[in-house]
Amino acid sequence: MLAVVRETSGRVRVAQVADPVPTAPGDAVVRVVLAAVCGTDLWGFRGFPAVPPGPRAGHEFVGVVEDTSRDVRTLRRGDVVLAPFWWADGTCRACQEGLPSSCPRGGMWGGEHDGGQGEAVQVPFADATLVRLPLTEDDERLPAVLTLADTMVTGTHAALSAGVAPGSSVAVIGDGAVGLCAVLAARRAGAEQVVLLGRHAERVALGEEFGATDVVREADEAGRAEVRELSGGHGTRCVLECVGTQQAVDTALDVVADGGAIALVGAPHGALNDLSPVFLRNLTVSGGLAPARALIPPLLDDVLSGRLDPSPVFDLTVRLDEAPEAYEAMASRTALKALIRR
Amino acid sequence: MLAVVRETSGRVRVAQVADPVPTAPGDAVVRVVLAAVCGTDLWGFRGFPAVPPGPRAGHEFVGVVEDTSRDVRTLRRGDVVLAPFWWADGTCRACQEGLPSSCPRGGMWGGEHDGGQGEAVQVPFADATLVRLPLTEDDERLPAVLTLADTMVTGTHAALSAGVAPGSSVAVIGDGAVGLCAVLAARRAGAEQVVLLGRHAERVALGEEFGATDVVREADEAGRAEVRELSGGHGTRCVLECVGTQQAVDTALDVVADGGAIALVGAPHGALNDLSPVFLRNLTVSGGLAPARALIPPLLDDVLSGRLDPSPVFDLTVRLDEAPEAYEAMASRTALKALIRR
Repeated sequence: MLAVVRETSGRVRVAQVADPVPTAPGDAVVRVVLAAVCGTDLWGFRGFPAVPPGPRAGHEFVGVVEDTSRDVRTLRRGDVVLAPFWWADGTCRACQEGLPSSCPRGGMWGGEHDGGQGEAVQVPFADATLVRLPLTEDDERLPAVLTLADTMVTGTHAALSAGVAPGSSVAVIGDGAVGLCAVLAARRAGAEQVVLLGRHAERVALGEEFGATDVVREADEAGRAEVRELSGGHGTRCVLECVGTQQAVDTALDVVADGGAIALVGAPHGALNDLSPVFLRNLTVSGGLAPARALIPPLLDDVLSGRLDPSPVFDLTVRLDEAPEAYEAMASRTALKALIRR
Repeated sequence: MLAVVRETSGRVRVAQVADPVPTAPGDAVVRVVLAAVCGTDLWGFRGFPAVPPGPRAGHEFVGVVEDTSRDVRTLRRGDVVLAPFWWADGTCRACQEGLPSSCPRGGMWGGEHDGGQGEAVQVPFADATLVRLPLTEDDERLPAVLTLADTMVTGTHAALSAGVAPGSSVAVIGDGAVGLCAVLAARRAGAEQVVLLGRHAERVALGEEFGATDVVREADEAGRAEVRELSGGHGTRCVLECVGTQQAVDTALDVVADGGAIALVGAPHGALNDLSPVFLRNLTVSGGLAPARALIPPLLDDVLSGRLDPSPVFDLTVRLDEAPEAYEAMASRTALKALIRR
């Protein structure tokens, strides 16, 4: 089959790879209908800091079950399914506690495993991992559903981790797809004020459509002061940090109110070199990797009923053989997030 | 009057200093009846890392109101009072929200201000800061009440910050007075398992009296593995870090379960140089400086009724002129915590 493969330079190409087959008892093979390119796929690409090299790419996909191993009980050939970005066994303590992202047998698509950006994927623990959809493979809601693989669940996890509640003041750092979904999530959680820090005109405009009440265009000292000014001089109660860089972490510390909470959902490349602000100001810092499978069901209900539609984060659609161009477009900021259709 | 004064070497002496007088409208002057020496008083003493030099010492005291400024409304000469370690104005947003430790006009006794280890203290914002006690100055419950100035409220803040709840598994790092009070606080919050990490035989014995269910004597790799072993192999849901060193922070990260919470209440001298564990394991890190004044009232009720008695943390009583010997005893670990009686 064809799949997106990483080059050591960080660039990608579409190459012929082995067809996936179910090998372990709980495996399924899913033919990919829709996949997405995530901001983290760009790490290691065009000057973005490197990630550990992995030959396959993509961790967001919707598809159709093609084949199952003997132990798969709840899925059959032809089922349309959503895959969360992380597979998990569904039986361990972490999974039972609603934290499948800590499943010791779990993992993320791509790297040594099939990635979502390919014609098909071998899926471990298919019963526990996949979410069956009451949709056909040409349903127009599939792009919105696909955001529940990572982007929208990660934005939701940020809002939950920071304790966003009715009336909260919230700052969202980053106008990437996760940041914009965090705006949506904060408003869904009842936030009264959502200040979006982002510098790209089209993206912050979408953030305003998603419910941002204020926009601050630069995260420099003046921009940080502006966020504090907008939130009564003391900063926001909740900060959803959706970038992951040191600058973003420092910005979060600068704009959060004393006693407030920072949720880190950007892939972490920063540090807290000094714990004094956390200590002296009674901040709460939490993270990170969204327990996607546990968060999908309630969000899916809202996507299916039309109450939630994060699909405008997709502003480019390509075919699988055009995937390298989608990476280029996202790296050069001419696209926010790309959808890959077979 | 006489007061404990810091030398630049970090040692202390008892010296003649100016008598305090009420200068601002809300001031009171309190004659000190009982004071305590805190582990943080030892920073800068005998090889402990240095703190910014300050001439006065001590931030825990109980006393009797001697004089008040005209605007003081709720206190009068002769009232027996407890001072939280941090004064606060009681009117700002932070105070109103229950976080007096973030009061912009607040501060800690000692340094440029009168310290608790002296004959008297000038108290700003006396109405908001001091807690009037229904006790005489010779009541035998005063040492227990004095733990509410810092030690026991800090232990309580740790338990609250880490979300200790009925049935929780908890690790307490450090067998100093705050760590032992954190054990008490965790049990009061309903913790089922409280693993105390401490290396001093008498202290961990007191920890067991306070409710520790398990004791681990070394925080090395074997000790950390033992904590995980004791808590089902995965670590405890809550960690109360009551030391503040880098080693203590690293131990906290090693013994907390995925999805768990670490409360930092030791004066912070460490860092989170890598945020990946927080992110990948969905940890929550919070702190730190206890909002003492807000936490005192419910604890005080329990101390007065006898349901709570942290006073066994005091294992040495000295007169004010013997204060330097109390510092020596605590620095050499022959005393856990010293009480200074006039």
